[in-house]
Amino acid sequence: MRITTKEDYIRSLKEQHHVVYYNGRRVEDITVHPAFIPHINAAAKTYEMALRPESEDLATAVSHITGQRINRFTHIHQSTNDLIRKVQLLRAIGHETGSCFQRCVGWDALNATYMTTFDIDQKLGTDYHQRFIQYLRMIQSTNKMVVGGMTDPKGDRSRPPGKQSDPDLFTRVVERREDGVVICGAKAHQTGGANSHEILVMPTQAMAEEDKDWALTCAVSLNAPGVVQIFGRQTNDERKFGGRLDAGNPDFGLVGGETLIVFDHVVVPWERVFMCGETDFTGILVERFATMHRQNYGGCKGGVSDVIIGASALAAEYQGTHKASHIREKLAEMMHLTETIYAGSVACSAMGYKTPSGAYYPDPLLANCTKHNVSRHVYEVARLAHDIAGGILATMPFEQDLRSLDVGRYVEKYMAGVDGIRSEDRMRILRLLEVMTGGTALVESMHGAGSPQTQKVMYGRLGKLDMKKKMAKRLAGVDQ
Amino acid sequence: MRITTKEDYIRSLKEQHHVVYYNGRRVEDITVHPAFIPHINAAAKTYEMALRPESEDLATAVSHITGQRINRFTHIHQSTNDLIRKVQLLRAIGHETGSCFQRCVGWDALNATYMTTFDIDQKLGTDYHQRFIQYLRMIQSTNKMVVGGMTDPKGDRSRPPGKQSDPDLFTRVVERREDGVVICGAKAHQTGGANSHEILVMPTQAMAEEDKDWALTCAVSLNAPGVVQIFGRQTNDERKFGGRLDAGNPDFGLVGGETLIVFDHVVVPWERVFMCGETDFTGILVERFATMHRQNYGGCKGGVSDVIIGASALAAEYQGTHKASHIREKLAEMMHLTETIYAGSVACSAMGYKTPSGAYYPDPLLANCTKHNVSRHVYEVARLAHDIAGGILATMPFEQDLRSLDVGRYVEKYMAGVDGIRSEDRMRILRLLEVMTGGTALVESMHGAGSPQTQKVMYGRLGKLDMKKKMAKRLAGVDQ
Amino acid sequence: MRITTKEDYIRSLKEQHHVVYYNGRRVEDITVHPAFIPHINAAAKTYEMALRPESEDLATAVSHITGQRINRFTHIHQSTNDLIRKVQLLRAIGHETGSCFQRCVGWDALNATYMTTFDIDQKLGTDYHQRFIQYLRMIQSTNKMVVGGMTDPKGDRSRPPGKQSDPDLFTRVVERREDGVVICGAKAHQTGGANSHEILVMPTQAMAEEDKDWALTCAVSLNAPGVVQIFGRQTNDERKFGGRLDAGNPDFGLVGGETLIVFDHVVVPWERVFMCGETDFTGILVERFATMHRQNYGGCKGGVSDVIIGASALAAEYQGTHKASHIREKLAEMMHLTETIYAGSVACSAMGYKTPSGAYYPDPLLANCTKHNVSRHVYEVARLAHDIAGGILATMPFEQDLRSLDVGRYVEKYMAGVDGIRSEDRMRILRLLEVMTGGTALVESMHGAGSPQTQKVMYGRLGKLDMKKKMAKRLAGVDQ
Amino acid sequence: MRITTKEDYIRSLKEQHHVVYYNGRRVEDITVHPAFIPHINAAAKTYEMALRPESEDLATAVSHITGQRINRFTHIHQSTNDLIRKVQLLRAIGHETGSCFQRCVGWDALNATYMTTFDIDQKLGTDYHQRFIQYLRMIQSTNKMVVGGMTDPKGDRSRPPGKQSDPDLFTRVVERREDGVVICGAKAHQTGGANSHEILVMPTQAMAEEDKDWALTCAVSLNAPGVVQIFGRQTNDERKFGGRLDAGNPDFGLVGGETLIVFDHVVVPWERVFMCGETDFTGILVERFATMHRQNYGGCKGGVSDVIIGASALAAEYQGTHKASHIREKLAEMMHLTETIYAGSVACSAMGYKTPSGAYYPDPLLANCTKHNVSRHVYEVARLAHDIAGGILATMPFEQDLRSLDVGRYVEKYMAGVDGIRSEDRMRILRLLEVMTGGTALVESMHGAGSPQTQKVMYGRLGKLDMKKKMAKRLAGVDQ
Repeated sequence: MRITTKEDYIRSLKEQHHVVYYNGRRVEDITVHPAFIPHINAAAKTYEMALRPESEDLATAVSHITGQRINRFTHIHQSTNDLIRKVQLLRAIGHETGSCFQRCVGWDALNATYMTTFDIDQKLGTDYHQRFIQYLRMIQSTNKMVVGGMTDPKGDRSRPPGKQSDPDLFTRVVERREDGVVICGAKAHQTGGANSHEILVMPTQAMAEEDKDWALTCAVSLNAPGVVQIFGRQTNDERKFGGRLDAGNPDFGLVGGETLIVFDHVVVPWERVFMCGETDFTGILVERFATMHRQNYGGCKGGVSDVIIGASALAAEYQGTHKASHIREKLAEMMHLTETIYAGSVACSAMGYKTPSGAYYPDPLLANCTKHNVSRHVYEVARLAHDIAGGILATMPFEQDLRSLDVGRYVEKYMAGVDGIRSEDRMRILRLLEVMTGGTALVESMHGAGSPQTQKVMYGRLGKLDMKKKMAKRLAGVDQ
Repeated sequence: MRITTKEDYIRSLKEQHHVVYYNGRRVEDITVHPAFIPHINAAAKTYEMALRPESEDLATAVSHITGQRINRFTHIHQSTNDLIRKVQLLRAIGHETGSCFQRCVGWDALNATYMTTFDIDQKLGTDYHQRFIQYLRMIQSTNKMVVGGMTDPKGDRSRPPGKQSDPDLFTRVVERREDGVVICGAKAHQTGGANSHEILVMPTQAMAEEDKDWALTCAVSLNAPGVVQIFGRQTNDERKFGGRLDAGNPDFGLVGGETLIVFDHVVVPWERVFMCGETDFTGILVERFATMHRQNYGGCKGGVSDVIIGASALAAEYQGTHKASHIREKLAEMMHLTETIYAGSVACSAMGYKTPSGAYYPDPLLANCTKHNVSRHVYEVARLAHDIAGGILATMPFEQDLRSLDVGRYVEKYMAGVDGIRSEDRMRILRLLEVMTGGTALVESMHGAGSPQTQKVMYGRLGKLDMKKKMAKRLAGVDQ
Repeated sequence: MRITTKEDYIRSLKEQHHVVYYNGRRVEDITVHPAFIPHINAAAKTYEMALRPESEDLATAVSHITGQRINRFTHIHQSTNDLIRKVQLLRAIGHETGSCFQRCVGWDALNATYMTTFDIDQKLGTDYHQRFIQYLRMIQSTNKMVVGGMTDPKGDRSRPPGKQSDPDLFTRVVERREDGVVICGAKAHQTGGANSHEILVMPTQAMAEEDKDWALTCAVSLNAPGVVQIFGRQTNDERKFGGRLDAGNPDFGLVGGETLIVFDHVVVPWERVFMCGETDFTGILVERFATMHRQNYGGCKGGVSDVIIGASALAAEYQGTHKASHIREKLAEMMHLTETIYAGSVACSAMGYKTPSGAYYPDPLLANCTKHNVSRHVYEVARLAHDIAGGILATMPFEQDLRSLDVGRYVEKYMAGVDGIRSEDRMRILRLLEVMTGGTALVESMHGAGSPQTQKVMYGRLGKLDMKKKMAKRLAGVDQ
Repeated sequence: MRITTKEDYIRSLKEQHHVVYYNGRRVEDITVHPAFIPHINAAAKTYEMALRPESEDLATAVSHITGQRINRFTHIHQSTNDLIRKVQLLRAIGHETGSCFQRCVGWDALNATYMTTFDIDQKLGTDYHQRFIQYLRMIQSTNKMVVGGMTDPKGDRSRPPGKQSDPDLFTRVVERREDGVVICGAKAHQTGGANSHEILVMPTQAMAEEDKDWALTCAVSLNAPGVVQIFGRQTNDERKFGGRLDAGNPDFGLVGGETLIVFDHVVVPWERVFMCGETDFTGILVERFATMHRQNYGGCKGGVSDVIIGASALAAEYQGTHKASHIREKLAEMMHLTETIYAGSVACSAMGYKTPSGAYYPDPLLANCTKHNVSRHVYEVARLAHDIAGGILATMPFEQDLRSLDVGRYVEKYMAGVDGIRSEDRMRILRLLEVMTGGTALVESMHGAGSPQTQKVMYGRLGKLDMKKKMAKRLAGVDQ
């Protein structure tokens, strides 16, 4: 059955009966649980926008396999134009949610796996690509939401998988059977995991020959036996259980909602296995997934930053500081930082190229550059928002104080800004700013799609330093 | 009765019966309420350290009025050495609490009022200084904790007090009576307000002649009729009600704990009034308070940053990344930023000078410089901490997940780092980092002791631009 | 006669007999004068690359007027692909020259005038566009080099043209005659002026109705009577007269070579006048020229920065520090900054659109963003180059010391680095770095295509702040 | 004979007959050579200020050896107050010269050697300290100028002295004789070398046991046989031979003036040898010299930056932009950066302490911090100066154009700014800015007193990371 509307999506989650823990307890139905509703709402936007005439062009595409119009989040990119639309779509949904809407990670996993299974088959004569096309066909037709399962817990980072005290710290095949493989391990930081249907498991790093058992790509239904999800804490997560004002962005939350997804002897049928031991292709798969995921960040975080900029401008207006030149300067700086990250996403898309599989791929160096700027600029945008909003961001009373019969009048009176603006509205905008610029949201910008150092390392590999040295020698007149 | 020990301090708060609201409800006894205990613990350190032989020299001083040994937080600085010790003391307590311990703000208010009442009397023949010395004597002998009441709600920031729609948006005298004045208004962002005994109200900005009624300095007992405090929300404040692990810094919290202190027709006896209408002295009082408060920030935030650096180093060690050169580089950068802010605090102290009142005053330009660096560097320290700690900071399971019979074993297993470190300890350090580098703690660094633009403005006033232009002309050979 | 080869170009300059002053003296033939040769060489690359098979595709285009293959530097952009090629071409020539090759400024002037004359005619029924197409046809067929004459001297920046003490501080029409207009004034910072054939004069800012006489666009031959050029000083310009080693980049210099071009009652025939008094179109012409010129900077400065990166890497290798992790980190950072500016240029091109005239135009907000990053990042690239190269950059002996019979052996001996590298080669690379990262080259990055504040201002105009405020209100639940 | 006045100083240089090469030729008398006069003038300020009543207190001190009043540049610091005065003195001379005045480096060498010879004698029973006191007594009484000879050429930086292909790449003892030692090698970047009397040679890094021959501290007269100096190129150095306007800072130049000092079999008598083979003390001597030299940079560069700020403010005034809010903001930022570096110098002085020798020593961590900020902030000050001054900094005509009968009137006319300011004066200020913010001056700020990475490394050593980890554990509740 195809998931088309938000209601379809919610129903599908309700019926899925997957195992999710929150704060030490199993959640029977996440669709009615306050900790999960905002994340479901955000992901639902990826379905809703595909139904709106004005965003249909961005949010849908024509499948190159079936010729059917599909949700773009399940599409294999067929042109640089497709790559640019991806970025535009992400910024547009960021405007709607002010938060992470989660579904790009699975999309990137689909594209990376598509390209890489093609290459494996070409080289080794396997049939992974055909298997994967079958799987992709199912995803495109059902419009299911897929998690991209990249990051392993990794234990002692100075050791490879096979040298960990506990071999499960990297997800692995513990048994090869006729009907499939049995896997153990976990994937950490799984954005949208709780409200997805599938996970596409990939290796977390380039593997050496001896780490064959960890060279695994496969798709797992999140309601398969042995799959357990544990939802992560977020900054101010308990506010979701209180009033809407203090929640700041009550409908969509502040991040995607991450889970630790545990695989405790999960059986995966062979038709869902897309790499199993081909260590030579682990590096390229990781790099492709990372590149495509890095491509996104100027789009989605660009959109989210736009909302922060708007809220900062309102905060200034509401307290009468918006005409001060330093405020205008800071807003301009925030816009500059935001356009800088967006420019990166557009540029790597425009300079994208066709891979042997036919799928288009963004320029990896520029995608890398994009994400690296995000890991700095989103923090600076947040800092400037704090600067503009003022100290009240740190000391504002509770919504319940505003509602109190005893002290509500004081809160009302002393939270007043310029004439004509309700204190309550001022408080709403400040809370929105607070949640969008605090802990978890920032950390997500830093480490999502790879920690900063993983990008720095790529400059060493992709930066063509030798060519640059040659140019310098020629100009300086050095012959050697 | 003199408050000497932590127990004395807690008892004094218990017996004070001041009016404090939290989350819409009056709190009968803050000393047993989880939202307040961490802040009380932090402030109590200012009493405890005065009793420890090894810190006595820093934490106490000899009163220049009485010759008695007193808590340094009630001392009027008598030398540049006193100013330097202030800074050293603040860093030392920062090391103990990893948080704001609140008591410097009242201390700065005492010193600023001391200097300024002297000046008013010199010029106008009033007797404010003697009144104030009496008050100070009481504070020194009882060792009470004083809030420095500077910041008014201010409503529309583009208008002066007398042009606000509601005149109470700046605290003011509404009636002058034989026994004292009646005041209305509020003070915002009152650090440590809930667990203090007194507030020393000061004007929030330089006032023009027509704003006489707002030119008010006076001391108010926090249990005086008409004084109502409303406690502000903080990032993750609800974690104080849960387990210790998720609280991160369970004993001391993440900031000082701020209240909105409302004065609803509070009567202040004349002997507690230290300025009443002398608008000419409002500017200098504000500047002095601001200077002395800005002096602090390289001390206390230096201490707090030291803890963040230590926690970041541990986080790296626990996951096996501590030998990577980029990690060592980032730790060095964090230390560099921290020593830069500390250097500012030391420098403005060393270059301090004697005011006409006899009290010593830090160099205002350098104090300003210090705070301005804090408003940037603490954010960068936090950003680097996030970089080092990794994405797990944003997605780590709840303490209750770790304790769960169902999934505790998974959390234990997959939160493992290097051999020999318990997953639980790794989680503790990460939670400490999370709470020390998130929303409210950062905003406090930005806006405490004045927003960044208030410092920028001081460069225009104190920067001696004319002298600098003369030097340039001389060197360039311009005669005019 | 069509200029095709470098030789053609040099001959054309030799025969032009235009008036150029250098260091207080008229230069009879710039093509044999050491101060000009490097700039001529750099500009000549724009001719040479069009003749090379491997760069022909980038460096030429098909004229939309004549269908002939023309030098791309005279082309009107017909697609976003044309815009992207422009950027790629600039980076490629930057690699060849390590310097400014000057010719983009006239190119941008041609495109901006093309678009804007179309608009004027549409609105006012004038025939400027046809006149301009005739002019453009001549430029495309002769392949002459055109200077874009935007910046006036401007005198007192706080006053408009008509309020200056000297009305010539903005270039203006002093007389309208039957055969044309007579103009007075000057254009400053005219990159490549000394070795160009034509200048396309444009207004320097949006003009008000009363400043009609200054609303002037016209083409002037640089050998027209009354045109006088004065060449500007550059950092280390006297090294061009000494040996090649100390010159650093002996063949191409460090910047484009700028002149002050004075118009002392120059007669301009009507067929070369493309705006004369239409003040309403001054703003859009300036904005278009600025946008297209800002588009370039990630291309050309990206190319130049690549050379700096290469030279820095060599400097490290030659002294044995290239394996230090901090050096690798700094090289990666330089590459990151370089790709960031390049990404901006690509992005504004990819998001370009068709104007009513048919010519394509880059996205102005992203072009703006690009240049603003250049005004920061090129300085940081230079700073990192200095960091890597070491103090020797500031204290290295003269080439003549190396050549000296007395002390040459000491220079040789003590400038030695790692085995196998000649001291002289090490010195060459260091000198290249020195000249590429010093004074004039940096200032050019700051102010070329508009000073940083002109870009900041554009964020206020193009940043869609109202839309952003609306998004924030919706998410925060503010209805107003 | 004691050098007291500027004239004495010049005479002493004239009579010294030391060997100095400039641009491949021996300079017979540096005191009349344009390349050297500015540097002599700058160093002469250290003599002149000692004679002025208003600066005598800063510029002189009482010798702890003889009780005589001496030039402070020869003084061994006897208190933290002495350390602070050092910093104040440096800033004051920076205001006078806008350049490096060179003499602090020898001063720091004297203090470092004083402390360390004491320690060697204490441990090893040698008599270096007494020898050194004799030498110091001579320096104090003659008031000679001493170069601090720290940095060796170092060749391949990845190898220690004994592993270089050429052992002279680190200065060393090649023969021990009865009357003294014979040394070979060179010292690079020797600030003020050409116009000094003595060099105090010190080892450039911590030496291992096997590098005994390179563990050398000794004093050498610069006119001793075998000492040859080669003067380094500077940015725009040829302008010293032209008119004063283009020179920018015609009287004092832009940097100290550095030489490569070669020792070609120079004999050093034993009474001038203060370390010879005691490798254990090389590290501490280097660290002490570096610390005391790093202490300076917020003083001297603070003074120099003040001049840049003044010139920037004038540049803005002269062109009518000084009231723009962004200009005021940028000037404030420049002052902020300048006070930040100054604060570091003051702070490390105030936190200084007494060494076993009795000499006072600044806090090494804070001194380190100071210099590290200088290596960033001076660049940013320069960048902001460029931003304020405008593109004219890069394209301004020559002084000879202004003087020209042909085009002088054009330069006059078009370099005009606001009414009442002569174009020539505007040009002077712009040239001053240009020379103070370009190549060599910046590199000096980066690498003087140690390259940035040498400071980063010190954080690892002095940053007390273990203590910080303990604090974090305690707060987080980690027991281990």
